[in-house]
Amino acid sequence: MTLLIDIPTADEYPTRKAHEPALLYRRSPTVWGSADGGPFSAEEIADYDRRGYTQIDSLVSGEEVQAYRAELERLSADPALHGDDRVVVDPETGRVQSVFGVHGLSDVFASLVNDPRLVERARQILGSDVYVHQSRVNHKPGFGGGAFFWHSNFETWHAEDGMPRMRAVSFSVALTENHPHNGALMAIPGSHRTFVSCVDPSPSPHHRTPPKTRGVGVPDESSLSLLAHQHGIEVLTGPAGGATVFDSNCMHGSGDNITPHPRSDVFVVFNSVDNACTAPFGSSGPRPEHIASRDFSPAGR
Amino acid sequence: MTLLIDIPTADEYPTRKAHEPALLYRRSPTVWGSADGGPFSAEEIADYDRRGYTQIDSLVSGEEVQAYRAELERLSADPALHGDDRVVVDPETGRVQSVFGVHGLSDVFASLVNDPRLVERARQILGSDVYVHQSRVNHKPGFGGGAFFWHSNFETWHAEDGMPRMRAVSFSVALTENHPHNGALMAIPGSHRTFVSCVDPSPSPHHRTPPKTRGVGVPDESSLSLLAHQHGIEVLTGPAGGATVFDSNCMHGSGDNITPHPRSDVFVVFNSVDNACTAPFGSSGPRPEHIASRDFSPAGR
Repeated sequence: MTLLIDIPTADEYPTRKAHEPALLYRRSPTVWGSADGGPFSAEEIADYDRRGYTQIDSLVSGEEVQAYRAELERLSADPALHGDDRVVVDPETGRVQSVFGVHGLSDVFASLVNDPRLVERARQILGSDVYVHQSRVNHKPGFGGGAFFWHSNFETWHAEDGMPRMRAVSFSVALTENHPHNGALMAIPGSHRTFVSCVDPSPSPHHRTPPKTRGVGVPDESSLSLLAHQHGIEVLTGPAGGATVFDSNCMHGSGDNITPHPRSDVFVVFNSVDNACTAPFGSSGPRPEHIASRDFSPAGR
Repeated sequence: MTLLIDIPTADEYPTRKAHEPALLYRRSPTVWGSADGGPFSAEEIADYDRRGYTQIDSLVSGEEVQAYRAELERLSADPALHGDDRVVVDPETGRVQSVFGVHGLSDVFASLVNDPRLVERARQILGSDVYVHQSRVNHKPGFGGGAFFWHSNFETWHAEDGMPRMRAVSFSVALTENHPHNGALMAIPGSHRTFVSCVDPSPSPHHRTPPKTRGVGVPDESSLSLLAHQHGIEVLTGPAGGATVFDSNCMHGSGDNITPHPRSDVFVVFNSVDNACTAPFGSSGPRPEHIASRDFSPAGR
């Protein structure tokens, strides 16, 4: 593993290009806007800047939570969406797990991604107008929601979607309570200041065998151990209606869920209009529109 | 699902015999001894009686923890134990995961299972002399210790080892810190008062297909949902050197571990000498001696 190297190239965050992982310094601020005059308090902004995320106990009301859950049910049952690329179905149960691009499918979710409670917070953090890079609604049932290994969203968005810099923020709005025992999000506070460059999983001419990896874009265990040792790990619990707001480069993951308690959330990624996606930095072609939007029109305007 | 039925048979806890799960009342006390005059305080005994488990912050010293870890390393590396049935090896990594019957393999662990700090506590709970039904030392590495689905140990010990009644207690002595994020033990407090009778997984003449089950001796999701809804779920964290002491019928499980933090513990099951194992109640033959001991000589005497 190469530690915190400085590579003088046009691509500030090279990844999936070498056979050794590397840790790179972040080259941009976490908070681009101001602590004053936005919906976030100065303390919340400082917390977000330091940890790479902050939590809001109550972002939407209980009635709204019910409405979002009902809308998820409606979309899941809609025969017009059967077989649609935007709908991800659990192959074992046949149940809908995720619906992507929900702000294009549903007035209810279109209204949420343009809601000032989200948009003004995203604008405050990113210091500019923002657009929706991705939206989706997720349902993980009890007794079986699988683990999601550690990752930085930015690594994927940079490599596969062509997002140039770390100037995007994600909102996970909880539609169910996140307990410590039902596979809640875990995060490494402070990890957003380091970019873990992932290995190229293809065979190397210099190595007899390709590097051992858990998959494309998955960080290596040594880098993760270093980050976890340095910063610790937090389990992000919270009530339904609350939200976790996190930086694009925050290292996060979740364990599996053996409890009966399901988990649902609405996930919205805002990117700065000044950081609109270009050609992918680490793969052959951009991903589909419902996963990585090319509609850069400002949200909430 | 049949609720809390009362079956007038010689077997108080029938399991794996019907094609429908059932919930049965516990027919014996949880605490057989007295709250007075033992190492456990009256509060700890009341806690154990109510929840089905209690936790001790510091049962053994830091030096002892180091000695047990070193002894685990020594046993894991011992060429004489290579291929021994008592040693369980991870097929992927080749690393030793568990060593069973450790009190028969190691003076260090023989001393621990006869230590008054454990034995006197077990005697206080079980109200009699006690013997070691099973001992083992476990190591789950970081980045990959898999989940262990919900189960009652007693269900297995009754069905496969011929343990007649719920008069056994388990000690899990932590050799590493149990965090909320590295796959700590989870338990349903109060679940020890209900026996979840597991289904017979063989095809039924009355059903076209065998019942859907996760495996032999695994409780059904409806029963688990009911218990979790009734009692909640607790995550049992704690420092190295601490211990969780739990009833044989406590419903417990653990999630997987995606963190770098490994988990090790020494696990000792004490059974009352008045509850010695007979013929198995739900399978064809008893399990090997290192898993279910037939040496009923009292520990610590």
